[in-house]
Amino acid sequence: MKEKPWQGRFEKATHEEVEKYTESLSFDRRLYRYDIEGSMAHCRMLAECGIIPQDDAERIIGALVEIRQEIEEGRFVFDPSFEDIHMAIEHALIKKVGDIGGKLHTARSRNDQVCLDIRLYLRDVIGTVRKGLADLMAVILDLAEKYTDVIMPGFTHLQHAQPVSLSHHLMAYFEMFRRDEERFSDCLKRVNILPLGSAALAGTTFPINMELTAHYLGFDRVTRNSMDAVSDRDFLVEFLSASAITMMHISRMAEELVLWSSPEFGFIEISDAFCTGSSIMPQKKNPDVAELMRGKTGRVYGNLVALLTVIKGLPLTYNRDLQEDKEPVFDTADTLISTLRVLTTMLPEIEFNEERLSEVLDDGWVLATELADYLVSKGLPFRKAHHVVGKIVGRCVKEGKKLTDCTLDELKGFDEHFGEDVFNVLDVRKAVERRRSAGGTAFSRVIEAVKEGREHVRRLRESLSGDGRR
Amino acid sequence: MKEKPWQGRFEKATHEEVEKYTESLSFDRRLYRYDIEGSMAHCRMLAECGIIPQDDAERIIGALVEIRQEIEEGRFVFDPSFEDIHMAIEHALIKKVGDIGGKLHTARSRNDQVCLDIRLYLRDVIGTVRKGLADLMAVILDLAEKYTDVIMPGFTHLQHAQPVSLSHHLMAYFEMFRRDEERFSDCLKRVNILPLGSAALAGTTFPINMELTAHYLGFDRVTRNSMDAVSDRDFLVEFLSASAITMMHISRMAEELVLWSSPEFGFIEISDAFCTGSSIMPQKKNPDVAELMRGKTGRVYGNLVALLTVIKGLPLTYNRDLQEDKEPVFDTADTLISTLRVLTTMLPEIEFNEERLSEVLDDGWVLATELADYLVSKGLPFRKAHHVVGKIVGRCVKEGKKLTDCTLDELKGFDEHFGEDVFNVLDVRKAVERRRSAGGTAFSRVIEAVKEGREHVRRLRESLSGDGRR
Amino acid sequence: MKEKPWQGRFEKATHEEVEKYTESLSFDRRLYRYDIEGSMAHCRMLAECGIIPQDDAERIIGALVEIRQEIEEGRFVFDPSFEDIHMAIEHALIKKVGDIGGKLHTARSRNDQVCLDIRLYLRDVIGTVRKGLADLMAVILDLAEKYTDVIMPGFTHLQHAQPVSLSHHLMAYFEMFRRDEERFSDCLKRVNILPLGSAALAGTTFPINMELTAHYLGFDRVTRNSMDAVSDRDFLVEFLSASAITMMHISRMAEELVLWSSPEFGFIEISDAFCTGSSIMPQKKNPDVAELMRGKTGRVYGNLVALLTVIKGLPLTYNRDLQEDKEPVFDTADTLISTLRVLTTMLPEIEFNEERLSEVLDDGWVLATELADYLVSKGLPFRKAHHVVGKIVGRCVKEGKKLTDCTLDELKGFDEHFGEDVFNVLDVRKAVERRRSAGGTAFSRVIEAVKEGREHVRRLRESLSGDGRR
Amino acid sequence: MKEKPWQGRFEKATHEEVEKYTESLSFDRRLYRYDIEGSMAHCRMLAECGIIPQDDAERIIGALVEIRQEIEEGRFVFDPSFEDIHMAIEHALIKKVGDIGGKLHTARSRNDQVCLDIRLYLRDVIGTVRKGLADLMAVILDLAEKYTDVIMPGFTHLQHAQPVSLSHHLMAYFEMFRRDEERFSDCLKRVNILPLGSAALAGTTFPINMELTAHYLGFDRVTRNSMDAVSDRDFLVEFLSASAITMMHISRMAEELVLWSSPEFGFIEISDAFCTGSSIMPQKKNPDVAELMRGKTGRVYGNLVALLTVIKGLPLTYNRDLQEDKEPVFDTADTLISTLRVLTTMLPEIEFNEERLSEVLDDGWVLATELADYLVSKGLPFRKAHHVVGKIVGRCVKEGKKLTDCTLDELKGFDEHFGEDVFNVLDVRKAVERRRSAGGTAFSRVIEAVKEGREHVRRLRESLSGDGRR
Repeated sequence: MKEKPWQGRFEKATHEEVEKYTESLSFDRRLYRYDIEGSMAHCRMLAECGIIPQDDAERIIGALVEIRQEIEEGRFVFDPSFEDIHMAIEHALIKKVGDIGGKLHTARSRNDQVCLDIRLYLRDVIGTVRKGLADLMAVILDLAEKYTDVIMPGFTHLQHAQPVSLSHHLMAYFEMFRRDEERFSDCLKRVNILPLGSAALAGTTFPINMELTAHYLGFDRVTRNSMDAVSDRDFLVEFLSASAITMMHISRMAEELVLWSSPEFGFIEISDAFCTGSSIMPQKKNPDVAELMRGKTGRVYGNLVALLTVIKGLPLTYNRDLQEDKEPVFDTADTLISTLRVLTTMLPEIEFNEERLSEVLDDGWVLATELADYLVSKGLPFRKAHHVVGKIVGRCVKEGKKLTDCTLDELKGFDEHFGEDVFNVLDVRKAVERRRSAGGTAFSRVIEAVKEGREHVRRLRESLSGDGRR
Repeated sequence: MKEKPWQGRFEKATHEEVEKYTESLSFDRRLYRYDIEGSMAHCRMLAECGIIPQDDAERIIGALVEIRQEIEEGRFVFDPSFEDIHMAIEHALIKKVGDIGGKLHTARSRNDQVCLDIRLYLRDVIGTVRKGLADLMAVILDLAEKYTDVIMPGFTHLQHAQPVSLSHHLMAYFEMFRRDEERFSDCLKRVNILPLGSAALAGTTFPINMELTAHYLGFDRVTRNSMDAVSDRDFLVEFLSASAITMMHISRMAEELVLWSSPEFGFIEISDAFCTGSSIMPQKKNPDVAELMRGKTGRVYGNLVALLTVIKGLPLTYNRDLQEDKEPVFDTADTLISTLRVLTTMLPEIEFNEERLSEVLDDGWVLATELADYLVSKGLPFRKAHHVVGKIVGRCVKEGKKLTDCTLDELKGFDEHFGEDVFNVLDVRKAVERRRSAGGTAFSRVIEAVKEGREHVRRLRESLSGDGRR
Repeated sequence: MKEKPWQGRFEKATHEEVEKYTESLSFDRRLYRYDIEGSMAHCRMLAECGIIPQDDAERIIGALVEIRQEIEEGRFVFDPSFEDIHMAIEHALIKKVGDIGGKLHTARSRNDQVCLDIRLYLRDVIGTVRKGLADLMAVILDLAEKYTDVIMPGFTHLQHAQPVSLSHHLMAYFEMFRRDEERFSDCLKRVNILPLGSAALAGTTFPINMELTAHYLGFDRVTRNSMDAVSDRDFLVEFLSASAITMMHISRMAEELVLWSSPEFGFIEISDAFCTGSSIMPQKKNPDVAELMRGKTGRVYGNLVALLTVIKGLPLTYNRDLQEDKEPVFDTADTLISTLRVLTTMLPEIEFNEERLSEVLDDGWVLATELADYLVSKGLPFRKAHHVVGKIVGRCVKEGKKLTDCTLDELKGFDEHFGEDVFNVLDVRKAVERRRSAGGTAFSRVIEAVKEGREHVRRLRESLSGDGRR
Repeated sequence: MKEKPWQGRFEKATHEEVEKYTESLSFDRRLYRYDIEGSMAHCRMLAECGIIPQDDAERIIGALVEIRQEIEEGRFVFDPSFEDIHMAIEHALIKKVGDIGGKLHTARSRNDQVCLDIRLYLRDVIGTVRKGLADLMAVILDLAEKYTDVIMPGFTHLQHAQPVSLSHHLMAYFEMFRRDEERFSDCLKRVNILPLGSAALAGTTFPINMELTAHYLGFDRVTRNSMDAVSDRDFLVEFLSASAITMMHISRMAEELVLWSSPEFGFIEISDAFCTGSSIMPQKKNPDVAELMRGKTGRVYGNLVALLTVIKGLPLTYNRDLQEDKEPVFDTADTLISTLRVLTTMLPEIEFNEERLSEVLDDGWVLATELADYLVSKGLPFRKAHHVVGKIVGRCVKEGKKLTDCTLDELKGFDEHFGEDVFNVLDVRKAVERRRSAGGTAFSRVIEAVKEGREHVRRLRESLSGDGRR
């Protein structure tokens, strides 16, 4: 066990159980890259401001570069008795450069240091997520382009409602993921701020230049209040919340993929490479990946609840409870990034069964609204027209026949406004085509939407082509 | 029981239990104002586009104005057998103007209508919340100005850490609420979009002009995909999430008010008008309001979980599950708005006990960092200086004396760098003053922060002076 | 505004906003019956123990009876300036009987009084829930009996797995609700305990007899620690958790009802009386009730999270945060009880489409396991047999033919163990019949299960025939 | 990559991303012991029932013993391309004994196998948790015995309410943990049931004897419905819920330890071995362990929400979403068990500062109820007595003097019933002693409670002395 940096006033060594219970190295070690990046910027600033000699700064930075390399090459020993990644790296630093290594911690505390690390980490994660969303949107556009011409029943209440373009259905998800990207972008505004220099909680007495450190690290600005800076974890909650909403969307798409893969629906066939079988039933081909995506929504919701619970009712400023902030965020980031990637890879491997889609439209129920609209065009108020068509449908159901099977005479029996031209509206393709209102399912509208979407993704990717920062 | 608008194809009447189970009028009636506002805009647009005669439109709008007045004057009878507020109003409309009332529902469905209503409602709520946050920030600035000169122990782990300006502590909350306001403002971008015209799910065949309706209602734009438009509830989840974070902040402040009111802390006295007593213990004066604020955080978290759960795994597009979207949002809005108002009213009624704050600083532990910094200024690396001071503290604790009681000789016994000038740093006021880094607690920094904050609130209020829309 | 019972030491009146913010009368008034029941028992005990004169007790009880009647007949005025139901009733009491009414509050506090009320309330609720579960189980047994002979595909991953008896599928839900009832019964053990006499937190100096009060009220025992007694809300969390699990089960059944109602599945037809239509699409018949049940799961989950959040980190004993305990419990109880009732009423109104169930089994995929088991019976290890049948299935899928279409020669081409007798196992009825392991789907097993289930419900109802208490 | 056991009907190999996304071996490998235990019992049963030859069974069991040893000695290679622990072990088995290893999977499926494993695992965990709770209760009893004679202010609203015995306060936690243990014991009834033999979902055609397997494994009974058996995860949710309540209790105790450690309270001193310091402030001694316990409540709440979310709305029977059941349970079990252990180790290392406890009682406010009770004994109704004392308190606060400083004349000025004997009740020790109601704080009551508690723990430990099963 190493001596603690704060051992001075303590008489007893930390209890072994406590070491294990309170250590965070086992999970915060993944922040090493950000910890070193932050330390190097801090060190440069300290030297620039004349707080530490330039020579010392160079030796420190050189040693940090070495440490990073050792970690990346797997040669670094993470001794669990160091409480956290900050201590593990500082200890290695001092071993390399001796006492001057101790100067690095001038004008900072672990309280602001860990906030810096997690902000750097999250900035990267958000960049990756936004790129992942851009890729997913691009794949949806591909599918939408491929299936522009295919008609399927649009559902409400999992009942056939009105015919829609399959592309239109897919583009609904495009919109969801587009909003998700916006939310991550908004969140980034509150992430990309430098807290380092807030020190333990009150700021520091050393004549530091936080703007300079912010500049080195690409931050938009510095925090405005040191006490807030070391206890603020809003940006993490906001990230978890944006992730929860994204997973909520993915869970909806996954639900549909599962439904559509069922023998009863039979709308799609997912490639063997994205399905698994059963250890006991040789015929099974299961849409496991989609199910698992739906399931993983649970853990992301849970992570959000976890962090909200942790922070509720905490007095200012830093409290050790806040150590519990990292694992839910890491787990969410990993889940979200991998889910986006797998979904993006899987979608092009899905074949829609156009024949089946056409078949399920065959009974014509989805055209009932057309009939009602037809009557409105003949002068009936909508409410009345609706009622008449309801009666017709009721009769058809009873007699087990399709809506399109009705003769003109039969229709006239319900309302005399029906004329020969009614059969023109009893056509799913026309029904789709006629819904030309903004955002409607008309083929022309969908083609426009895909085009506008392409342009959006192009611009987004351009803006992300740097390092994912705004 | 009224006949349902969709009764046509049904043979059996709705079961009475089902009526009760599925009705939403008991809670969605509070949307009446938005439902009517939306209907009037829709009606104007329909007439403008020649879909209904101008005369009919005028009669409809006239009747809607009457209905609104009846509701506001409590003369309107909400018959629970109408499923929802939309039906209740439409029924009243038809009673007033006859069959032409049925024309209002042309080119829309309840699916897009309810989305419109809730967006109008939420836009108002967000305006109120942002104003409430501005008021709260203003009150915090007043307090910060009042107590600029007062010093208190800054806490980490609920232990004395370093001395800070009381104003600095208060301004940490200012920052939190400032971010909250930003989040609501970001959310508004995704709220202030018109869905009406998406109809049931696929758009409408009528030649409507959604941009016109959007213009009438002050929306930024129209939705891009009709299927998404009727099933999207993201903006509600996002509102709940922003509210949860705001309540999280309030719960932290409430926790501190409760702590500080305890006899052991004794930092503050809350006015009698904001405390309650006990039915059995005559001496009790309880900070109930702060406790209740902290407690109400629970319901807001719960509401967020509720809606996330509802939407998870729902296939497109509208499903009746979504009816469960309103109550959590209403309850959250009510809770948040009233909590902000009560907190804003209570804060000026709190007196800080300056004597007590000074007393608890008396043992000087909060100056330990100053001693360490002193040694650093004499050339010791920080880590070493920290260790020396730790030993001094340990000795003082053991001997039951204050840090400021140590003689120079005693200090020299621990490290020979100590000199007569050490006693200059052993002063809480100087300790505060010396933390001049950006966002630090130095009095000058805090005064700057208050000034900048005033300017921010002024600009924010200006931008909100209209109707709360961006 | 009424003078508060604790006004003595206060100089300022409660702020009007605070009155509104802290009042609970608007929701705790529904506890009136329990509050009065508890007060009457307390009063009898006080008199029995000689703490108040018998005469006073009689007058108090008489007045309480009157008050209860006034409330039940709607003649009681709930003045919101009374903080809560306890104060409202006590005030009415004192108005009726004068100063001696003040004696009722001897040896108790609102802290223990509210705990008593909510325990009495919850005991009733649990009784109702358990009866509701018994009724639901009985209805499932009816259906299971009705459809014993019907075969359907058993699903895993929403894919056809193996044929099962429809009754077997239904009886899976029977098991879930049976466990739910057990959990409520376990919870009741921790509800049915008397806290009254714990007073504010420390017990009382009056020589009360809590066992006597417990006896009057039908409690199993009295609480063991007064401080725990006034701050314990575990039993509410436990109730919310048991309710969440029950709603989780209902959400699964609801999901299946929605799926099965879709045109693609077409397994069931729900009676018109339990469906609703669309205001725009005349053909729609939506399984709204099932969807809403699934959706209401969200609010119950949210309520659980709300209360867990409220209690987390509260120091002993009573804190005002705990006032937030009631609404989530009331809302959950109302939701659960009405959902159980509606589900129980709806289930018998569902018709299964036996023809359709048979049709979807027709391709024979569900018999693949039978083929594998056949090969095992001929000596192949299971893993090998599985592989062979997998190959056969793959070929059939490719050639677009059914498993039952394969000739013996074709089968032999995959493995020579196949013989003429293989066609005996290619039969869904036999496949069901042969699964005779404990809890298996064999008809005989299911009939047994239904019989045992009947007996269970009979015994349960018997035990609940009293007042719902254990 | 290994060939999958279900590769038969598949043409394409699983996509590499899918392998990684869907594998569970990285976390379910910790179930190895239970998987092997279950397989051995299954194998014995198969042989006993004549389904496989006795010789084969012996070879299989022998190989399983070897595999277990290899795993325990770290010699087993967990190849991630095996999807899960079941496949990894079966593959190793077949490598050892050849084709007959394939016979082990007769009459079972991974669906029932994983349910068995997790039930065996959870049974062990519950045993450990119950023992951990017994140990914690024992330590609380020790403290309660040690401090029977110490008086502290009892708090409501974090204000001094009435004096209580410190032991009484501690025994409130005893009651909480006692209920927690009860809940885990109730949960165990629903865990300790054998699902193996339910096979994929429908039971098996092999003539197995599930009761025999249950007997070998120490289960109370076998599941009653195979479809329920493979999709039931209630017992996991119930475990998570019981854990959440336990952590809720721990968070309350932790909150108090943090509060009491603050300089303002100063009620306790936690041993150096259970505190940590600051990297920047040499004087800090932080109650980190208690803070972290409070914080870890968040993750346990989150895990509960995660699993509830996963299962909501899933159709029968097994769906891959359910793979997400394990990590929240593992994380909760690890968190709960370690937290219980650390808390049990830490509690005896806490010293209460009796002098400080006595000092904070000195102002006498906690005796206000005594004064009121005194007036009741002189004939005033309680409400009136309360009011009089409120006035006295108000005056004392204003004049800055203690309640015990009032002279008889001053008291008489408020109410003439005061007599010389009033000074007898103005004594905290007497105030404690007089609260002799059941569960009250009187010393005699507390001593009784500790004694009864000892007996309870003794009996509990006895019942747990076996293997943690009921």
